Amino acid sequence: MNAPHLAPLERPSEATLKSLVAELQSRFGSRTVTSAAVREQHGHTLTWLANQPPDVVVYPETTEEVSEIVRLCAATRVPVIPFGIGSSLEGHVNAPFGGVSIDTSRMKRILHVHEEDLDCTVEAGVTRKELNEFLRDRGLFFPIDPGADASLGGMAATRASGTNAVRYGTMRDNVVSLRAVLPNGDIVQTARRARKSSAGYDLTRLLVGSEGTLGILTEVTLRLHGLPEAVSAGICPFPSVKAACDAVIMTIQSGLPIARIELLDEVMVGACNTHSKLDLPEKPLLLVEFHGTETGVAEQAERFGAFAEEFGGGPFEWATKAEERTRLWTARHNAYWAANGLRPGAKPLATDVCVPISRLAECVDETKRDIAASRLIAPIVGHVGDGNFHVQPLIDMDDSAEVEAGIAFVDRLVERALAMEGTCTGEHGVGQKKMKFLESEFGPVALDLMRTLKRAIDPHNIMNPGKIFSV
Amino acid sequence: MNAPHLAPLERPSEATLKSLVAELQSRFGSRTVTSAAVREQHGHTLTWLANQPPDVVVYPETTEEVSEIVRLCAATRVPVIPFGIGSSLEGHVNAPFGGVSIDTSRMKRILHVHEEDLDCTVEAGVTRKELNEFLRDRGLFFPIDPGADASLGGMAATRASGTNAVRYGTMRDNVVSLRAVLPNGDIVQTARRARKSSAGYDLTRLLVGSEGTLGILTEVTLRLHGLPEAVSAGICPFPSVKAACDAVIMTIQSGLPIARIELLDEVMVGACNTHSKLDLPEKPLLLVEFHGTETGVAEQAERFGAFAEEFGGGPFEWATKAEERTRLWTARHNAYWAANGLRPGAKPLATDVCVPISRLAECVDETKRDIAASRLIAPIVGHVGDGNFHVQPLIDMDDSAEVEAGIAFVDRLVERALAMEGTCTGEHGVGQKKMKFLESEFGPVALDLMRTLKRAIDPHNIMNPGKIFSV
Repeated sequence: MNAPHLAPLERPSEATLKSLVAELQSRFGSRTVTSAAVREQHGHTLTWLANQPPDVVVYPETTEEVSEIVRLCAATRVPVIPFGIGSSLEGHVNAPFGGVSIDTSRMKRILHVHEEDLDCTVEAGVTRKELNEFLRDRGLFFPIDPGADASLGGMAATRASGTNAVRYGTMRDNVVSLRAVLPNGDIVQTARRARKSSAGYDLTRLLVGSEGTLGILTEVTLRLHGLPEAVSAGICPFPSVKAACDAVIMTIQSGLPIARIELLDEVMVGACNTHSKLDLPEKPLLLVEFHGTETGVAEQAERFGAFAEEFGGGPFEWATKAEERTRLWTARHNAYWAANGLRPGAKPLATDVCVPISRLAECVDETKRDIAASRLIAPIVGHVGDGNFHVQPLIDMDDSAEVEAGIAFVDRLVERALAMEGTCTGEHGVGQKKMKFLESEFGPVALDLMRTLKRAIDPHNIMNPGKIFSV
Repeated sequence: MNAPHLAPLERPSEATLKSLVAELQSRFGSRTVTSAAVREQHGHTLTWLANQPPDVVVYPETTEEVSEIVRLCAATRVPVIPFGIGSSLEGHVNAPFGGVSIDTSRMKRILHVHEEDLDCTVEAGVTRKELNEFLRDRGLFFPIDPGADASLGGMAATRASGTNAVRYGTMRDNVVSLRAVLPNGDIVQTARRARKSSAGYDLTRLLVGSEGTLGILTEVTLRLHGLPEAVSAGICPFPSVKAACDAVIMTIQSGLPIARIELLDEVMVGACNTHSKLDLPEKPLLLVEFHGTETGVAEQAERFGAFAEEFGGGPFEWATKAEERTRLWTARHNAYWAANGLRPGAKPLATDVCVPISRLAECVDETKRDIAASRLIAPIVGHVGDGNFHVQPLIDMDDSAEVEAGIAFVDRLVERALAMEGTCTGEHGVGQKKMKFLESEFGPVALDLMRTLKRAIDPHNIMNPGKIFSV
């Protein structure tokens, strides 16, 4: 394409902002907020990056209101940054060029549930737990579970996945259709509700994972699944991380339809024990879950047990009661916070990569050795059934040499994953922190093609500027 | 976007073509063909539309050769039409503005099979049967099965699906990565080989289903699946098409992981009996197949049997032996040809739509009544687990009133599906014949967004012009 770079970025002038804020206030009243505390809260969130607050935060309640806000911003070329619940890890909601943060937390309606079609349509601000609570009585659930109780709009925007993805796929696979506001304020519906279609370009998948750089997602139509008849879960310790990964590889290759298969290294297990008051064996662990019929689940568990044994895993401990399972998975979900507790005062450089499953053991193993050589405290946890794992180096941000070493470690981690045909992020997204890796991952032609799409849809570069593309 | 329409279309001048053909001949020798027979064979193929042959057909052997051809065409703004095996049904390979047909039938290399990662990379001209033959000894298979032994490049380009999609997804779900030649001749690789990624825009899904209008797919990396341990299949007659559809709806809603569930109406059953020398009961039939472990398959079959019974289906006949199954599925795959045999000399206006599963029975039922009222011979067959079905009106093309009536029937079929939140095509693609429905299906904003993408990537509109977008 030889695409020129994106439209140049600069902060809007004070005068532009002043009149925009006045317009927003006259239109949205107290739903337009400019206090420093709220603006900062809409900045970096969970990243270690410097907080770059937006100039103003607005809380729309409908797609049409989002459209109004975007039109005002488009007219004055003011950046627009979508905000869900702020659980992203890579600086997605920072506002490096200021602008308007569109907070979707008031867009909470569950618009339709088509039980008979196993789908539903919700506003972008509904969180995954809110949806699942709503669905429980209907025997349905939405499986994508990134850990945090993220908004479904945010999850679509970052192509989130999480613990259940190995069985149910990621947001890529579970979004049927999107309603979105484009950079000029137009409202688009990307697809019909049919389960499949060959009509035209896949606008849904174009927006899933676009991180707010092509438009703001306002309504999400999702694929639902029946609650499994039977669920069984348990933990299985292994002599080494490599042995655990080898058992995962064999499980996946065998086609066993495992619902969850999560790795915690011994450091992360220790952290979870402390944080969640558990007494898990402090060895590399696999947390597994099986969904199906009673006989199906039993069969799966038996097969998995045999694979685990082959690599020295065991003894297997079942969490047969629902509350035991909940306790286990709650501990897993709190792993991020548990890890942070290992070094109070430090900040996590939490990151993720994903490699083809055959390279998983090698990649995790090399990473463990790098952690040891770098003298980092960096627990590992991962959705290993997808070849995806997280590393969370805990860094003293006041020690610039340590910060540099932490960043260099993440760089090596990504380079290692890319060298194994993997990706710089399996599920966190690019945001600000992974931008520098995209050229190595995709090469110049693919990256230029992405830029071409961005320029065509957002010619003035007002949608979440400074994310995905550095220039 | 308020996108202006696409670049104006016109046939290249004779002089331009003459010098282009000379260049192609000097570069590709006898792999440059201009004979009328070969050009016509690369025209409409299976559609009833008038044959619009390209000016020249070239047979490249590598991605780099495709790139060379596209660069020559780009320099002179000559249309480029990709050609797989020509089994598309909606006029995808017609050349309404002339130009160069790029026939991928010499691109037959299976480049990599990563058994341990359940993926493979093949050149675009490899067909699904060729791939599956290659994979058989490795215990793996590629499940997407549109009936025809289509090329995998063509299948990706039209977002094909078919009988197994209800269990294994469509090409959207089973393409890991693509190598493609862009309209300027640049070669792009859309993704890494990791099972999931949140890095950047989903270029893979942008190209899947783009029907050659954004680039020419030259290599396809596909997700593979382990051959199921146990397979069982059978047929189940129903008192009416509606009863069969209701059984399908209940099966899908229950979450039963059925591998195939195909509807043949009684007209199609009759056609298949004649064509394939079978003695299936001439009633609406479901052909089903279960994949899994021995116990899993037995459990699934039992559950399906109960659902079928609830709607008056049965008796169920098992095809326990592999050769019986093959005979049954071969008959299903030959349904297109069988249907044509119902009215020798007539041409099929074969088409497909897809609706949310809850509307399937209603949509098929209304369509049956429309067929009767229109006095058409139009057998129905469908991948009903996805809400997707095909209708094949057999029309005497010399009778203009009948042609008009056939076209009007297809229009009503599509309008019916759209009114039920369905799509104008579940798996055949847009090509030339479904272009007129896209505005009703997507609305002006989404369609303009698609056009914006097309213009950005192919500013001179040389890639398969006159497909997907009429202007």
